[in-house]
Amino acid sequence: MRVMGVDPGLTRCGLGAVEGRPGAPLSLVAVGVVRTGADEELGTRLVGIEAGIESWLDEVRPDAVAVERVFSQHNVRTVMGTAQAAGIAVLCAARRGLPVALHTPSEVKAAITGSGTADKKQIGAMVTRLLRLSEMPKPADAADALALAICHVWRGGAQHRLSEALARATSRRNPAR
Amino acid sequence: MRVMGVDPGLTRCGLGAVEGRPGAPLSLVAVGVVRTGADEELGTRLVGIEAGIESWLDEVRPDAVAVERVFSQHNVRTVMGTAQAAGIAVLCAARRGLPVALHTPSEVKAAITGSGTADKKQIGAMVTRLLRLSEMPKPADAADALALAICHVWRGGAQHRLSEALARATSRRNPAR
Repeated sequence: MRVMGVDPGLTRCGLGAVEGRPGAPLSLVAVGVVRTGADEELGTRLVGIEAGIESWLDEVRPDAVAVERVFSQHNVRTVMGTAQAAGIAVLCAARRGLPVALHTPSEVKAAITGSGTADKKQIGAMVTRLLRLSEMPKPADAADALALAICHVWRGGAQHRLSEALARATSRRNPAR
Repeated sequence: MRVMGVDPGLTRCGLGAVEGRPGAPLSLVAVGVVRTGADEELGTRLVGIEAGIESWLDEVRPDAVAVERVFSQHNVRTVMGTAQAAGIAVLCAARRGLPVALHTPSEVKAAITGSGTADKKQIGAMVTRLLRLSEMPKPADAADALALAICHVWRGGAQHRLSEALARATSRRNPAR
């Protein structure tokens, strides 16, 4: 399963793709950021974010996209731009018919480090270890995008196994005649 | 000058277009809403909003687009969706190279009614009068979109007159030799 993670933002939108399945080693596909200038008009910035995500989707061809869920409790000054960048990532994925999942920062932290309150450094260290990289991906937005993708591989896998187990349990209770 | 106003929202995205210039009667071009289901996935809703806005832009062919500026002080439960719908409106306009303006709700209220704290009913009444309509446009989101467009015609006009006046003043101070 190939998952592309998006850590949304107007100034730096982190993008990272990984391949793997639960219980097996993960591998890095790509990592980077799309940047837009703080002095540009909002429309120009959103067009730039869309173009960047589209070209990543073309290259990476993911099976699913995981986007960080944005809350209004975040930094009030930047939260609207962050929500808009997230919306464009969801739009681009949905236009291609790709499944989109939204994960909260604490879900991602808990999945990667075991603690929902882990800091950026700890996330970066675990991403580096899990993908067997020689150094920590930079900037932090890029590492966060990889963490989102890893979280989705693992949670997606868990949800898949759960639905399989439920299907088995149901078929045992209602055996075919 | 033909302006399309967007009152952003996921459940109801108000759209309204007017034609006019400051100091002359305004005329209604089109008014309506794009709706998406609260039970649909976010991606499906954003794709629906984009398709609705695109088809409006194709039909209306505005010279400019005015979008309500969303603040995080708004209803916290819906503000993220509202910001994302606004972002898609800005994106669609900017992709076509159309100028985009963001106006705050109080700027719109002040432009239309003279008071930055006017209520929805007052906005609807003034939109009805200014466009010489036989009845108030419904729902309120559609009337708000028209109010945004009217505000932009007037403010755009005021800014235009201001730049003309400045240009005249400058040319008087620095007469051509």
